[in-house]
Amino acid sequence: MKIIGVQDYYADDFAKCYGCGRLNHKGHQIKTRWDGEETLSTYTPKPEHTAIPGFVYGGMLASLIDCHGTGSAALAFAKENNIELTEFNAPRFVTGSLKVNYLKPTPINCELQIRGKIKEVKARKIITEIELIAKGEVCVSGEVLAVLIPDNFGK
Amino acid sequence: MKIIGVQDYYADDFAKCYGCGRLNHKGHQIKTRWDGEETLSTYTPKPEHTAIPGFVYGGMLASLIDCHGTGSAALAFAKENNIELTEFNAPRFVTGSLKVNYLKPTPINCELQIRGKIKEVKARKIITEIELIAKGEVCVSGEVLAVLIPDNFGK
Repeated sequence: MKIIGVQDYYADDFAKCYGCGRLNHKGHQIKTRWDGEETLSTYTPKPEHTAIPGFVYGGMLASLIDCHGTGSAALAFAKENNIELTEFNAPRFVTGSLKVNYLKPTPINCELQIRGKIKEVKARKIITEIELIAKGEVCVSGEVLAVLIPDNFGK
Repeated sequence: MKIIGVQDYYADDFAKCYGCGRLNHKGHQIKTRWDGEETLSTYTPKPEHTAIPGFVYGGMLASLIDCHGTGSAALAFAKENNIELTEFNAPRFVTGSLKVNYLKPTPINCELQIRGKIKEVKARKIITEIELIAKGEVCVSGEVLAVLIPDNFGK
């Protein structure tokens, strides 16, 4: 079954992200959706995403937390503002800050679950608390402050 | 001129990291060295490392900060303990926690400098404050707490 994430509803120019853009065919194509009150992404690392052999690279784990945070913010913003997601109206958030705690080494040979709890929703800023789970154990925790992309982004 | 980083002195099993392992040919091969009292890595993103077109993906920036932090810790530990680095005796640190602040969008079409200041050196934990600079401007700041890899890592 094809997983549909909020990232499938970003406008084309917002869908080129290496982490989660459906139009970036060299990227990770992370997809984030609701799972009850939590947000969920899943990802199976490639063999090259190694840190120490057998375990996932910390930068890859930070990348998963990063895009899960912006995706979760988009979902939460749409819910808060009663926006029905469709092609291609999803709000686009960018990361303001990221915290990652590596609690234990993350095994590389399995699917990872990245789960978010929406902690705070303001007009343009959303904070998500995130846990990354491998084989039933929380290996990484993190927090993402995501900001609704300003009209003058990068100008 | 070939840049030599502390990562060139990791033992083989510690040199497979996607971010900085000299033996990971699909990875970023980040190399970290001293530049006066600071530590320095440089990296030119590939076109696919996009966030919003024209700017670097936040997960890639977090990856650069991550490996720069563990590399800086290895350099600082060697200095503190009067270890002369050679093949393949470099101490190996792993990331305990990572903080990243995205201050402004990072342009993708240039070499990035990642600069570290060693903030704290304990027996097995080293904290590095890091700035990521593009075209003379600090675009990202961060902090890495790195931990000397324990003998029972992942066991």
